[in-house]
Amino acid sequence: MITKEKIADAYQLIQDEICTGLELADGSAKFQEELWQRDGGGGGRTRIIQGGSVIEKGGVNFSAVYGKLPENIKKAFGVSEDDFFATGVSIVIHPNHPWIPIIHMNIRYFEMNGESGKELRWFGGGIDLTPHYVIEEDARFFHTELKNTCDRFQAEFYAKFKKWADDYFYIKHREETRGIGGIFYDRLNPASTGLEWESIFEFSKAVGRTFLPVYTEIILRNRNKSFTEEQKLWQFQRRSRYVEFNLVYDAGTKFGLETNGRIESILMSMPPQANWVYDYSAPYGSEEEKTLKLLKKEINWVS
Amino acid sequence: MITKEKIADAYQLIQDEICTGLELADGSAKFQEELWQRDGGGGGRTRIIQGGSVIEKGGVNFSAVYGKLPENIKKAFGVSEDDFFATGVSIVIHPNHPWIPIIHMNIRYFEMNGESGKELRWFGGGIDLTPHYVIEEDARFFHTELKNTCDRFQAEFYAKFKKWADDYFYIKHREETRGIGGIFYDRLNPASTGLEWESIFEFSKAVGRTFLPVYTEIILRNRNKSFTEEQKLWQFQRRSRYVEFNLVYDAGTKFGLETNGRIESILMSMPPQANWVYDYSAPYGSEEEKTLKLLKKEINWVS
Repeated sequence: MITKEKIADAYQLIQDEICTGLELADGSAKFQEELWQRDGGGGGRTRIIQGGSVIEKGGVNFSAVYGKLPENIKKAFGVSEDDFFATGVSIVIHPNHPWIPIIHMNIRYFEMNGESGKELRWFGGGIDLTPHYVIEEDARFFHTELKNTCDRFQAEFYAKFKKWADDYFYIKHREETRGIGGIFYDRLNPASTGLEWESIFEFSKAVGRTFLPVYTEIILRNRNKSFTEEQKLWQFQRRSRYVEFNLVYDAGTKFGLETNGRIESILMSMPPQANWVYDYSAPYGSEEEKTLKLLKKEINWVS
Repeated sequence: MITKEKIADAYQLIQDEICTGLELADGSAKFQEELWQRDGGGGGRTRIIQGGSVIEKGGVNFSAVYGKLPENIKKAFGVSEDDFFATGVSIVIHPNHPWIPIIHMNIRYFEMNGESGKELRWFGGGIDLTPHYVIEEDARFFHTELKNTCDRFQAEFYAKFKKWADDYFYIKHREETRGIGGIFYDRLNPASTGLEWESIFEFSKAVGRTFLPVYTEIILRNRNKSFTEEQKLWQFQRRSRYVEFNLVYDAGTKFGLETNGRIESILMSMPPQANWVYDYSAPYGSEEEKTLKLLKKEINWVS
């Protein structure tokens, strides 16, 4: 049987594996850990890495929190339950190299308990990639690896979760996707997946363990490429779109800000530097223009 | 009698005056104008100034738009009116110099018409200052000048609108104000002010005309001060708070993004460069710490 404790333990182990692996991939920077406790119950391990040879700023955070459900959350969920438990691992990495993409991963488990006696628990998560420059070969590799992980559990997962990511990571006011997407899923339970709880838990861990080999490979492919000052400026501009998405649309960020979460852990997703250039227009035929054309929904990267 | 046309004409003139004055104060950069038209009716003059000797990036925008009220706005206002008209001038200036503050000004007029026969129109606006470093003498000067303008129209205006700005320009998740505030007001009409429409219109213009002399004076006081590389980095950090406020809380920005406004005009308020530093803590006794202590509500700058 899966229990809250087992899930939290597994997630902590995944956090450890990823931090160790990212330090090796970076080659110079080390994570700094901050342990924190939540007033209402539980706490977390915020781990930040900065100023590396690859990673300019990144966070790999674990938390497991519990307590009484705030009234506004009850309302939002339309439930009368009193207690909740939530655990997860959240990652955002901002590399210093414009040819290496920003990556985001989250795996999480949530449950509510109360007088209703209903089973209100589920897994959520996903991995998505935000290249400053879309490299089609890397995009295909990334999506194929995600599909391979999904396919081990259910034939429809990849297509469904890929579309979910396209729809979720969309910057409506720019009419562009945040990056090349990936997978995004929420409220996975036996009813929504046809899988047993054990298998859904295995899937959640498998997503967590897809992160490191995939991102390490993409780092290796690109870390020795040279780049220009103009390409750095383009990177800063793309990061400003990342800021816009996270502050305007991202449900996790909004939830954190509204429920008085630990601000520095929530906003570790912000890039070290972002630039806004008024009314930028990519030169015809440029790499920048090519990238903008690929920041669209419904691109099939695995055919 | 005040008419839509008169108000829009007056606002355009104020835009012209301010652009001319800011070019003189900057001494090198010139505004670039873009005229745009709105599909549903009306349009505007977006004017952007960049790369100046004082102004790194700024916008002084005029718009006058009209048409059918979108359904979601009707709902938000709780009205059944069909037509609207809105005109205003909006300014955000990001100086390159860390000792010169960011400034924001807005004057606007809005009306709705329909079968209700009710008089649904009002003026709104304000001016507020966001210093990277709070200079108390400048803060007192700024607030005193705003108070002088307010006092010419009504004794309670300054106190009321100063508190309104404190409450509005508040970054809840940081527990700090965006800057040192200023004045903010909305829905001014004879019922809410005890003034005739003519006087409220005069007040709106007076606010618009307070901007230039006040900001020019603050530029002159600080433009020749020297600054360090660390102070530039602090400036970039403060700008990231400006980004957070505008994308998470600002009603005007949200309204623009949700109603498919002209994105580049709305987001001209974004700084040219913003930095996020993880878990920054200002050194004890530093200028940075002093500034953070002054980013609080309810500081009396005019006593």
